[in-house]
Amino acid sequence: MQAIDGARAHLRGMSLENISSIAVGRLGDPDIIPLWFGEGDVRTPAFIGEALARAIAAGQVFYTHQNGIPELRETLGAYLSGLGAKPVTPDRITVTASGMNAIMLALMLAAEVGDNVIAVDPVWPNAGGMADVLGAEVRSVRMDLGGDGWSLDPDRLAAAIDDRTRAVFFASPGNPTGAMIPIETQARMLEICRARGVWLIADEVYNRLAFGLNAAPTILDIAEPEDRLIVVNSFSKSWAMTGWRLGWMVHPPSVGPTLAMMTQYSTSGVTTFIQHAGVAAIREGEPFVAWMRGYCEDGMRIVCDALQASPRVRLAARPAAGMYAYFQVDGMPQSRQACIDILAATGVGLAPGVFFGPGSESFLRACVCRAPDGLAEAMRRLAPALA
Amino acid sequence: MQAIDGARAHLRGMSLENISSIAVGRLGDPDIIPLWFGEGDVRTPAFIGEALARAIAAGQVFYTHQNGIPELRETLGAYLSGLGAKPVTPDRITVTASGMNAIMLALMLAAEVGDNVIAVDPVWPNAGGMADVLGAEVRSVRMDLGGDGWSLDPDRLAAAIDDRTRAVFFASPGNPTGAMIPIETQARMLEICRARGVWLIADEVYNRLAFGLNAAPTILDIAEPEDRLIVVNSFSKSWAMTGWRLGWMVHPPSVGPTLAMMTQYSTSGVTTFIQHAGVAAIREGEPFVAWMRGYCEDGMRIVCDALQASPRVRLAARPAAGMYAYFQVDGMPQSRQACIDILAATGVGLAPGVFFGPGSESFLRACVCRAPDGLAEAMRRLAPALA
Repeated sequence: MQAIDGARAHLRGMSLENISSIAVGRLGDPDIIPLWFGEGDVRTPAFIGEALARAIAAGQVFYTHQNGIPELRETLGAYLSGLGAKPVTPDRITVTASGMNAIMLALMLAAEVGDNVIAVDPVWPNAGGMADVLGAEVRSVRMDLGGDGWSLDPDRLAAAIDDRTRAVFFASPGNPTGAMIPIETQARMLEICRARGVWLIADEVYNRLAFGLNAAPTILDIAEPEDRLIVVNSFSKSWAMTGWRLGWMVHPPSVGPTLAMMTQYSTSGVTTFIQHAGVAAIREGEPFVAWMRGYCEDGMRIVCDALQASPRVRLAARPAAGMYAYFQVDGMPQSRQACIDILAATGVGLAPGVFFGPGSESFLRACVCRAPDGLAEAMRRLAPALA
Repeated sequence: MQAIDGARAHLRGMSLENISSIAVGRLGDPDIIPLWFGEGDVRTPAFIGEALARAIAAGQVFYTHQNGIPELRETLGAYLSGLGAKPVTPDRITVTASGMNAIMLALMLAAEVGDNVIAVDPVWPNAGGMADVLGAEVRSVRMDLGGDGWSLDPDRLAAAIDDRTRAVFFASPGNPTGAMIPIETQARMLEICRARGVWLIADEVYNRLAFGLNAAPTILDIAEPEDRLIVVNSFSKSWAMTGWRLGWMVHPPSVGPTLAMMTQYSTSGVTTFIQHAGVAAIREGEPFVAWMRGYCEDGMRIVCDALQASPRVRLAARPAAGMYAYFQVDGMPQSRQACIDILAATGVGLAPGVFFGPGSESFLRACVCRAPDGLAEAMRRLAPALA
């Protein structure tokens, strides 16, 4: 299905298919075990909802700053300064209406019709989708899959950049791969982008879900404030706040006013009382984040052990981070149709590889952020389909 | 101040100035009487916050449908069907992260680099701002100011449309004018747009604040579902929910999937529990909306009576709708500087005409949605500055 005739030229060629297209009609169906989205079965911890109720009671229901409330920007600055090796000042932080919205703003800052944006894939499709909406060409630089998992050859990134390249998007820890790009490789990526004047957009949404670590290595540790670097993050995963729509971006201080302007004209800002709840999430959320990390690690073990027992499944290394098992299935020609068939046959919702970049047709993604019982049941149901 | 060098070509020429630029540094200052934004001093009614708390307690904290939760789309469909002369089906409704976000989606559907968008002005600047962000040219078609207030000559609209015109934006009731464009004129506008295949974007955010009416006339009454018409609305004004960020759009059913796709790639949807609160606002909010209408009407009387007593102020007719007094000041050459000077001298925050379209330099806008005491005090403070 494609966008209608009344839509502008660059929308008309776009596909309307995404992971939701698989799920549509079965959303909320209690017979389904939904492993398709990047969302677990964990409700937001109660203290965050309580902070929200307090903010509403205190009258935090009016318009506020386009870059976010000062208290949240300061809290995030202190949080990131504590997590990484370099301080992050509040003037480098803009609060956004989700991690996706941060990516939209980053791409809208960098790219327009006639430009191109490089996606280091396999990677979740939404950054490329937004580049498409903007009329920019999306170019794939694919990571290599070896015995140790996924890795990026930065020379292939350098070779893909041309004079119309305005941004490079990557996610580390990866979605769907769970791969962490070594910080030495990220340093090389930053060098390449610096040399060409290209924006580097780093998705660090899974940085707190690196197993055995307090946080995944961050590119902020090796960058300067005025590098053309934007690091996007979200409250969705580590604080179980998917439905809340709250994220942030770290950006050069000089870009703050432009981001405020684009925020004004796209959403006019983020729900005021939700920003106050975000302050509580950061300040009081560390025990929950640690619990969430263990929950995902447990889930990863259950799912990967089951997958590795299936002869048709190829999954070399268990991912060291994130929320997903991303695996190849021998003899599966069309991942989208496979997901539809598997959903019908087993009631387990998976995401097809086709949405994660070229060359991903034989892959499937499963979210592992669920209770052990549910995951074990999902893997029991899946076994015949993957045998 | 302009966007930085690292920004893409069509952003670099944009001004970062808007009403917030006047307010910055004095936001939340208790010595200021803030009449600059489209926001009153009324807190969101408690029943809406209670509905939100119930939704969170019920676990409505996960991702949901890109076009909005079915319950809210159905509720809005029934609400609009009851308000107007024609039924509005839920497949024509998409829930958005504010009225502004609805305008962003509408413009993103219609226009891109090289296209043009017509703004019927004086009108609030944000639709034009978003068109600028998209790289589309903004063309002004100015309403005429006569003894009875503002009126649009549709022949001037027809003359302004060319082959690159993709959308016409107007607001009725108007912001800042408060003017309601007669439905016969709106019918002519729709005809003109139909003949040229141009999208018509109608901002009806103030439709429930038409004094003495249950609702202002709506263009939905004279349109067909598949007209290239998008009507945007918001919970901000009539339900006092500015800080909540919740709006909606009525669109052709055929556009729903494209809007879902663009929502996926820009915000990934609207906060789930806030949508449930929106259901309560619509279902239980009619007494509050009626109260709000009276509150604005009282405010309009206080502000306009005071303005009309000032010899330098020209304000022919008291607006019949909306939240604003929009008035001309003799001998005021630069509205922006005037607002800065008036703020410093009186502590009253106003919005400068310069942001509402060409030819508006001698105008100022004051929001009248405040308690009578506060407005009377504001007008006392303003009197010397306008004398």
